[in-house]
Amino acid sequence: MGDRTVIAQPLTGDAFAPFGEVIGRDGIKPRPMNGDRASRYHALATAEIVGEGAGVAVSLVDSQPVSLPLALDLVERHPLGSQAFVPLAPERFLVVVCPDVDGRPGPPLAFITAPGQGVNYRAGTWHGVLAPLRVPQSFVVVDREGPGINLEEVFFDQPWRVEISPGAV
Amino acid sequence: MGDRTVIAQPLTGDAFAPFGEVIGRDGIKPRPMNGDRASRYHALATAEIVGEGAGVAVSLVDSQPVSLPLALDLVERHPLGSQAFVPLAPERFLVVVCPDVDGRPGPPLAFITAPGQGVNYRAGTWHGVLAPLRVPQSFVVVDREGPGINLEEVFFDQPWRVEISPGAV
Repeated sequence: MGDRTVIAQPLTGDAFAPFGEVIGRDGIKPRPMNGDRASRYHALATAEIVGEGAGVAVSLVDSQPVSLPLALDLVERHPLGSQAFVPLAPERFLVVVCPDVDGRPGPPLAFITAPGQGVNYRAGTWHGVLAPLRVPQSFVVVDREGPGINLEEVFFDQPWRVEISPGAV
Repeated sequence: MGDRTVIAQPLTGDAFAPFGEVIGRDGIKPRPMNGDRASRYHALATAEIVGEGAGVAVSLVDSQPVSLPLALDLVERHPLGSQAFVPLAPERFLVVVCPDVDGRPGPPLAFITAPGQGVNYRAGTWHGVLAPLRVPQSFVVVDREGPGINLEEVFFDQPWRVEISPGAV
């Protein structure tokens, strides 16, 4: 069992860089806007869209929390577009990604967001499904809308077990 | 003065349709997602992007509230792209738009969002700046990133006065 256990780590831009962008204010210098009445943390993520006739849509998603430890039996990816999730309340959620190994998901990495952080999965990044912790959460989703097959799913023969250190949430 | 006073109305998709989309769950049937653990209100808005070498960026903006009644002395528009604002907390904000009259802003219309509603201004829609009511608010912004001049501002010789009916907020 030990070698299929993953301990979730705090989400940082550096650790997440191979998979996409962290959407948060940390370490970003905002631009003044509206005559200094507002601050803009600009282009924290950029939509990546592949294919003719495709666009970028803004959606809302409401998700139930996962049970911990998480039995990770499925990951998916969207080969034709990035997918950004920004939480509508400053609650933490669990982010699971896998490096791609010859077109298949390699061993997962797990991250816990800081309150308010979101993520943008680059096109083709293997990731777990939305995983709020403890409470239901809503998200703004920015992803591709258009023709083509934009979903690949992989079910693991044996689930991975994703754990959160006591006191991390 | 009377004819430069605008009373803000509740924001509805129908009333806002000439200017863009309302981003909210009202009247939308969600799609199940992640095996019924989540509900997706899909493509409530679509990014509109003009010009070569341009993309769609996800940003965060923190804004101070406006004083009421609002003295509206400025509207702006982005000819090369739409601009979506989704509030990160279910607080109402004020949305001011103007029809285009021969390339100039016509008389403003003002709307008050329901808690949680966001808006997407279509490319070229004249609008006021971000206007949280009573408390500072943060927004996810989805708009164009790319070369070209994507801002036109018009200052009114005489400001419009935007009022909110007592009890509306």
